[in-house]
Amino acid sequence: MQIRVINPNTTRGMTDTIGNAAQAIASPGTLISATQPAHGPVSIESHFDEAISATGVLEEVAAGERDGVDAYIIACFGDPGLLAARELTRAPVIGIAEAAFHMATLISTRFSVVTTLGRTGIIAEHLLEQYGFRHHCRRVRAAEIPVLDLEDDGDAALTRIIEEGRRARDEDGIGALVLGCGGMADLTDEIAEAVGLPVVEGVTAAVKLTEALVGLGLGTSKVGDLAFPRPKPFIGRYAHFSDHEASGNDETR
Amino acid sequence: MQIRVINPNTTRGMTDTIGNAAQAIASPGTLISATQPAHGPVSIESHFDEAISATGVLEEVAAGERDGVDAYIIACFGDPGLLAARELTRAPVIGIAEAAFHMATLISTRFSVVTTLGRTGIIAEHLLEQYGFRHHCRRVRAAEIPVLDLEDDGDAALTRIIEEGRRARDEDGIGALVLGCGGMADLTDEIAEAVGLPVVEGVTAAVKLTEALVGLGLGTSKVGDLAFPRPKPFIGRYAHFSDHEASGNDETR
Amino acid sequence: MQIRVINPNTTRGMTDTIGNAAQAIASPGTLISATQPAHGPVSIESHFDEAISATGVLEEVAAGERDGVDAYIIACFGDPGLLAARELTRAPVIGIAEAAFHMATLISTRFSVVTTLGRTGIIAEHLLEQYGFRHHCRRVRAAEIPVLDLEDDGDAALTRIIEEGRRARDEDGIGALVLGCGGMADLTDEIAEAVGLPVVEGVTAAVKLTEALVGLGLGTSKVGDLAFPRPKPFIGRYAHFSDHEASGNDETR
Amino acid sequence: MQIRVINPNTTRGMTDTIGNAAQAIASPGTLISATQPAHGPVSIESHFDEAISATGVLEEVAAGERDGVDAYIIACFGDPGLLAARELTRAPVIGIAEAAFHMATLISTRFSVVTTLGRTGIIAEHLLEQYGFRHHCRRVRAAEIPVLDLEDDGDAALTRIIEEGRRARDEDGIGALVLGCGGMADLTDEIAEAVGLPVVEGVTAAVKLTEALVGLGLGTSKVGDLAFPRPKPFIGRYAHFSDHEASGNDETR
Amino acid sequence: MQIRVINPNTTRGMTDTIGNAAQAIASPGTLISATQPAHGPVSIESHFDEAISATGVLEEVAAGERDGVDAYIIACFGDPGLLAARELTRAPVIGIAEAAFHMATLISTRFSVVTTLGRTGIIAEHLLEQYGFRHHCRRVRAAEIPVLDLEDDGDAALTRIIEEGRRARDEDGIGALVLGCGGMADLTDEIAEAVGLPVVEGVTAAVKLTEALVGLGLGTSKVGDLAFPRPKPFIGRYAHFSDHEASGNDETR
Amino acid sequence: MQIRVINPNTTRGMTDTIGNAAQAIASPGTLISATQPAHGPVSIESHFDEAISATGVLEEVAAGERDGVDAYIIACFGDPGLLAARELTRAPVIGIAEAAFHMATLISTRFSVVTTLGRTGIIAEHLLEQYGFRHHCRRVRAAEIPVLDLEDDGDAALTRIIEEGRRARDEDGIGALVLGCGGMADLTDEIAEAVGLPVVEGVTAAVKLTEALVGLGLGTSKVGDLAFPRPKPFIGRYAHFSDHEASGNDETR
Repeated sequence: MQIRVINPNTTRGMTDTIGNAAQAIASPGTLISATQPAHGPVSIESHFDEAISATGVLEEVAAGERDGVDAYIIACFGDPGLLAARELTRAPVIGIAEAAFHMATLISTRFSVVTTLGRTGIIAEHLLEQYGFRHHCRRVRAAEIPVLDLEDDGDAALTRIIEEGRRARDEDGIGALVLGCGGMADLTDEIAEAVGLPVVEGVTAAVKLTEALVGLGLGTSKVGDLAFPRPKPFIGRYAHFSDHEASGNDETR
Repeated sequence: MQIRVINPNTTRGMTDTIGNAAQAIASPGTLISATQPAHGPVSIESHFDEAISATGVLEEVAAGERDGVDAYIIACFGDPGLLAARELTRAPVIGIAEAAFHMATLISTRFSVVTTLGRTGIIAEHLLEQYGFRHHCRRVRAAEIPVLDLEDDGDAALTRIIEEGRRARDEDGIGALVLGCGGMADLTDEIAEAVGLPVVEGVTAAVKLTEALVGLGLGTSKVGDLAFPRPKPFIGRYAHFSDHEASGNDETR
Repeated sequence: MQIRVINPNTTRGMTDTIGNAAQAIASPGTLISATQPAHGPVSIESHFDEAISATGVLEEVAAGERDGVDAYIIACFGDPGLLAARELTRAPVIGIAEAAFHMATLISTRFSVVTTLGRTGIIAEHLLEQYGFRHHCRRVRAAEIPVLDLEDDGDAALTRIIEEGRRARDEDGIGALVLGCGGMADLTDEIAEAVGLPVVEGVTAAVKLTEALVGLGLGTSKVGDLAFPRPKPFIGRYAHFSDHEASGNDETR
Repeated sequence: MQIRVINPNTTRGMTDTIGNAAQAIASPGTLISATQPAHGPVSIESHFDEAISATGVLEEVAAGERDGVDAYIIACFGDPGLLAARELTRAPVIGIAEAAFHMATLISTRFSVVTTLGRTGIIAEHLLEQYGFRHHCRRVRAAEIPVLDLEDDGDAALTRIIEEGRRARDEDGIGALVLGCGGMADLTDEIAEAVGLPVVEGVTAAVKLTEALVGLGLGTSKVGDLAFPRPKPFIGRYAHFSDHEASGNDETR
Repeated sequence: MQIRVINPNTTRGMTDTIGNAAQAIASPGTLISATQPAHGPVSIESHFDEAISATGVLEEVAAGERDGVDAYIIACFGDPGLLAARELTRAPVIGIAEAAFHMATLISTRFSVVTTLGRTGIIAEHLLEQYGFRHHCRRVRAAEIPVLDLEDDGDAALTRIIEEGRRARDEDGIGALVLGCGGMADLTDEIAEAVGLPVVEGVTAAVKLTEALVGLGLGTSKVGDLAFPRPKPFIGRYAHFSDHEASGNDETR
Repeated sequence: MQIRVINPNTTRGMTDTIGNAAQAIASPGTLISATQPAHGPVSIESHFDEAISATGVLEEVAAGERDGVDAYIIACFGDPGLLAARELTRAPVIGIAEAAFHMATLISTRFSVVTTLGRTGIIAEHLLEQYGFRHHCRRVRAAEIPVLDLEDDGDAALTRIIEEGRRARDEDGIGALVLGCGGMADLTDEIAEAVGLPVVEGVTAAVKLTEALVGLGLGTSKVGDLAFPRPKPFIGRYAHFSDHEASGNDETR
């Protein structure tokens, strides 16, 4: 089984961090291939960065389809392009925010999130609402560290995440902590030990969830609103999407 | 006052339809400039089309900033790129789904939506949830017409929309009907007359809402999560976003 | 276009404040006629005051219908009598709480409210729930000033509102502030400057929203539950409502 | 114990129907005194009728306070003036919609409502939302009978209510039926027998709920937002409210 | 009328406390018979304790049916086995959490709960969600006292409950306080006096609610999902449930 | 890794069906041990059956702890005793309703459920509400077959499930179907093929989810409300629970 882990930003170091964390947790028969878009922002810290990154994610999914990939992970905590990516494939596609939220509700009744910058908290809140977990999450907290500090100034970043995690433990009445950034994928154990709570990290959670779906023979439904997109012309730099051969004999409504 | 109406798809005829409808409803002092992205799909009928179109919308907003535009309208019923666009400007940015939903709640207690294809209904449902109008909307209905049929086979499309609108009137217990596609902007009056309900159309609604916001001196908040994005490098075909000069002295959190 | 701005309390000074703020923001072709009921409380600070004031609001709407008014604004933050008023007319009717909430969601993802007395906070909460904005509003705060202090002791009132607004800015994670009393209509700019957040005030917001609706040719739906009331006898001091001539040929259900 | 049952409309026959039904269900030591406003509509079939009737309800509560009444029931299914009435007294005040909804959730997991006119369904929906029972109610149905037909053409009205109740039983997956009009208070048994479901009627339910609250020594909280209204001048026909002597030493916020 | 008050734990002293409080509030014609299971935990302080206690509750209901009991109260704040118990009888069955929540919403717009241990707060939260009162309850608080301390160290327990109740009064913006444990049934008056808020206690509230339902002739609906369970074999220590004679001629779906 | 699959009813044939389906989907290194309680109903078709079965589930978990089991599955669609079971162990515990709902949201935007008897639909509805998936599920449908018919009259049962599944596909606007009974675990493929939708079955979904959690090193949180129960005496037939040795040094609140 090959899982394509897509880092939606264009920072190679973070792709490696994410890919390594994914491979480390993967089952023996699972091959992780970590990629990143050829086009896009070096980090994702706003709705704007996220919207731009989504097109890169979609191109990576299209490439994955040509490579015969079995499942996809979108490794940014805003789950950029998730539903669009699902339309492109019969394979499962999992976002890391989604994966972490689901897993957290299975081991605790209430959890909190620690993300990077406060301004991205709203993205997590909107996802919690859409996925149904608004009331399972007590609070979305921010360590107020830029995403790339996780790469460039890892120790200071770790310290701040742990501090915020401890505040969550002491103030929020929670049973688990969710890490709110793909770049934290290698910090899970240290944070869990320092905070004294089960810590759910999205990249690793998504690897196991995609393995689970593939094991069940379940892929993205091609009936209804996640069916392949209707083929149509695309203009300009997206012209290469014009000929995507969605299997035209699928049921759509 | 100049309002930039952005048709997120790349079909010039639809841009004209939308621009004309917008100009027709605009106040005397309002100049409508209708544009479309240089890159993207000819119509938007899926999450995929929508995600791709969002980058074009953002480039049109960036261009509008250079042109000194006073307000923006995103003229596709999925409101693609709405929050990202808001980050790029101090001006108001309004989506047409949003505009139509707001206006419909001001003239009725319950409304239904008639959109083009059933598969895009989920996009409207997600927006209704995010905006808070889940319970104000009785039902999202589809006329099951491809978007470009509004351009190419207008009479048949109109007939089907009216049929579905009448079903909504008879079955849903509503006081108003919302048209769920920017390409219907020129059909409002005919549909209203044929259905016998107030019909709220998003392009025209958005023009008046943006005029209202500009008149109030209200623009997108630059405090908190809609502040200008943090400047950073973008790679590849988005490199031109690297130097976007968000006013760095704004408060962010 | 004539907009009838109804101050639901019977304090002339507040009617003037509201009327002036409304006229100042109105478009060139818009005439504001500000009125107040002949009967009712001098200020509205409880469910009781609000219920009494509603009948006065309705009489002002009935009078407006005789005067050929084009739209109505109910200028108390509890939106007293809003749905009842809508039943009396084909014109749009907008409450100032409603107007402020709608506008605030268009320029920010989350807002807080600063109202006068804590005991009226529940009124705002109920409206937020009914309108769909429960989750867009982080917190309803009170400056703990009686309504008429806005008239009688304006400086002290202003100081307290600003203090509470700054607390909202610092503690609530918001992008905009909503002023929760019609009597604050002339304080918007000072508060915005002092707090450093976009401030949405309901009277002015409602003027622009009603202009928008009239411009769109949209009025209160007369199909379904906002149709004209069924004619019937009224007893005693409300006997004059017995002969209200709702256009009997409207559809009702 | 004296319970004041207030029929919010001004039709004496309906007051008698309601009062008789209340007395018939009351405990031995309970005296029912049924009243109606001196001013207001002969029936309540719209938001407008309801808003007007609320002032009459409040005057009846004020009169009840002078009479030393122990509890109040507002016997119209829209619960007009409920929170305002609570502010006027330390005694419990119960609305019949509220009473019926609460009781229905204690004997079934899901219920439906049969009300008079479809246009008043929205009033019931808003109350269900405010009280928290949105999801416990499967459907608000209408028999499409004017309220006074319950008095004037009782047999035909009963037939239609039973028909609609049977549809509810067969289609809605419910365990109980709620009658949505005070004027149906004498029809409960016949409807229950004909429909074959437990039928919850609000007047009778409210009598037992008020007896329960009085028995518990619980009355309307005078701490916080239901405290007595702040004393203030009222103008015109409401001048008599100016001197209402709310016990000024209560805590308010 | 005989009301069977079931203390779901097996501590006789608490059964007596609860039974006495119930009898003290009961109407003259009401006989309270307080019982406790023969099998189960001495106190209920976790999901585990609650699940075990439910079977004892059901046996007490089955016994009550043989005794011709008119109504049942489940006197633990988690309402263990509530819906199951309803299936066993045509009589009303009321949980004390449910009873307290309902009554609290009738005398205040917002309330808080003070329960025993923080870890049981989630049980109250889940019930608030299921019953519809999520937004009526500001906060579930814990005095952090083990349940049996109410019996064994009553003064210290009372002190802590009062302290937490005062914090609720000062911080939560509420009009009433709900006591979150059946073992507090005899403390209501002291707490109310000390805290200065109306205090709603579940055992007493449930007595009056069951009297109310019996007075209305309303019992648990036997149509639909609360119908008697389908007869079937039970194995092992539950074999005695095999022959429960649910009236087989009831409608089920 | 050993997963203990607990069939909450006492029908051996169903335990085998469930165990075989679980083993068939399990990963190579996973040992499935399927058990059933020594005490309880032969099938679970009501709140009553479910409450009784929960104690058996808890005894099986306690036994599993002595056996050193790595994870637990509760294989009845009502997830009986789920939170209580979690309190007893550091291992993950997954209910099959929960598992199916989670997986269904990962491959579709909306799903429907087909369960056995209509009367148990309310159990699924309550779980959907508690887990957060109320709006992801369009409809809970029933094939109206008793649970044991799945064992005794499999062909007729399968036919009815397929019929109801096709109605769901045609009427509900869904992308996936959830099977609402553990006894359907061996029918998944046939139903999927016949209905033409992805079918999510809970037993198999739960196996993969528990493998995922164990792979992540995540177990039930022992901080907060899922901590081990406080040790205490149990009376009568539950006396053996008195000495359960919850690791007393865990943090509880």
